[in-house]
Amino acid sequence: MKITLNKKILDKNEECAIRNKTFFADNKILCLNVISSPGSGKTTIIAKTIRELKNKLKIGVIEGDIKTDIDARKIRATGAPAVQIETRGACHLSAQQITGALGAINAADLDVIFIENVGNLVCPSDFNLGEQARVVVLSIPEGDDKPAKYPGTFAKADVLLINKFDLIDHIDFNIEKVITDARALNDTLKIFQISAATGAGMQDWYNWLLDKAK
Amino acid sequence: MKITLNKKILDKNEECAIRNKTFFADNKILCLNVISSPGSGKTTIIAKTIRELKNKLKIGVIEGDIKTDIDARKIRATGAPAVQIETRGACHLSAQQITGALGAINAADLDVIFIENVGNLVCPSDFNLGEQARVVVLSIPEGDDKPAKYPGTFAKADVLLINKFDLIDHIDFNIEKVITDARALNDTLKIFQISAATGAGMQDWYNWLLDKAK
Repeated sequence: MKITLNKKILDKNEECAIRNKTFFADNKILCLNVISSPGSGKTTIIAKTIRELKNKLKIGVIEGDIKTDIDARKIRATGAPAVQIETRGACHLSAQQITGALGAINAADLDVIFIENVGNLVCPSDFNLGEQARVVVLSIPEGDDKPAKYPGTFAKADVLLINKFDLIDHIDFNIEKVITDARALNDTLKIFQISAATGAGMQDWYNWLLDKAK
Repeated sequence: MKITLNKKILDKNEECAIRNKTFFADNKILCLNVISSPGSGKTTIIAKTIRELKNKLKIGVIEGDIKTDIDARKIRATGAPAVQIETRGACHLSAQQITGALGAINAADLDVIFIENVGNLVCPSDFNLGEQARVVVLSIPEGDDKPAKYPGTFAKADVLLINKFDLIDHIDFNIEKVITDARALNDTLKIFQISAATGAGMQDWYNWLLDKAK
C-alpha cells in the first residue's frame, strides 16, 4: 500500500517534471537543481556565481526552505530575481512547486535558473524537478565519508562542488577518498574543488556553467 | 489519502515507541535520540563521551545510516557495543528498527543508549523512538540560521550541542543569534557549546548526562 501510494506521488511529480523540462528547453533555459546538507554553502555559491557572471548570464533562483525567506533575500541582494518556497515541514521541493514559482521570477527571460533545494542530503534526490543537471555540494567540515554514506544522492548528480576548501588545514579530510568514492558511484561526475568564501577554484565552475548555458 | 496513510505509519511507530519507552524505564536505561545534519560530529561526540565516562556509565550505541557501518566501527573501537542499522534509502530511523536492535547490544545491561539517527535535520524529528530525551547537534560551519530554517527539529529537542567551536575563528557565526532563535522555539532547551575534537566545553555535557542517567 505504502509503495503504491509513493509511486503515485512520484508519478505525479514525474509528469510535472517532464512539463518543466519542456518549458526549460523551449525557452533555452539551463535549470540546475542544487542539493546538499544544511549549511554546506549552496546560497553563498549561487550568490557569488550571480555576481561574477552578471554581465554574461541572466540568472534567477528558486529557493526551498522549511521556513524563512533568508536565502531569497540574500539572492535578491545580488540584483537577481529570487522566489522563496517555504515547504512548512516537507523535506524536499516538488516539480509542482517549481512550476508554480516560474512566473514569479519571469523565468522565460532567464538564461539560467538555480533551484536551491531544502538542505537535506537524502530526500531531494528522489524527486526530479525537470532540471537539466543536478549539482551536489559537499563541504569539507561535513567529512570525507559522505559519498559512501549517502550513495543515492551522489550517484544521481552531474556535478559535485567540494566547498569550503579554505578550511582544509583545520580539518582531517581525505580529498582523494571523496573523489574515489564518488567516482565509484558515478563515473561521469564533474568534480570542482572550491571555496565560495575566498573564490578559490570558482573559475572552473564558472567555465562549466558558461559552456553548459550556451 | 496521503495524510491518512502517513498517520497510520506514524501511529504504528508511536505504538512501538511507547513499548521501547517502557523497556527503557523498566531497565533503568537512559535512551537519547541524537539528531543533526550530516557531518555535524554526532559520532565523534558519542565516541568521546564513551571514552571519558567508561568507568562511570555502561554505554551502547544504535547507529542509523543510509549505507555503510563506518560509524558502528568507530564506536566499537572505544570498546562499547554498537549495532548498525542501514536504512537503505530511508531518511530516518523508526521505533520498530530500535526494538529490533536492542538485543544486539545487550540493552538490558546498559546505563545509557545513544541512538545516532540518520544525518538529516528534517525527517527524524517526526519519529518518536521511545527516547527519554532528544539531543540536536548543530556545528559551527553549518551557519547560525539553522534554528530559524529548521524550527521543528529545534522545537522538539531537549538538548542542543553547538559543536566544532574550535572552528569559530574561521567562520562568520553569531552564537547569540543561534541561542536566541533556539530559545524562542523552545524555552527549556539545555544548550552546551562544545568541541568534541579538542574536548572544550565537554565537561558540562558529561555532567548533564551523568545527572540524567542517575
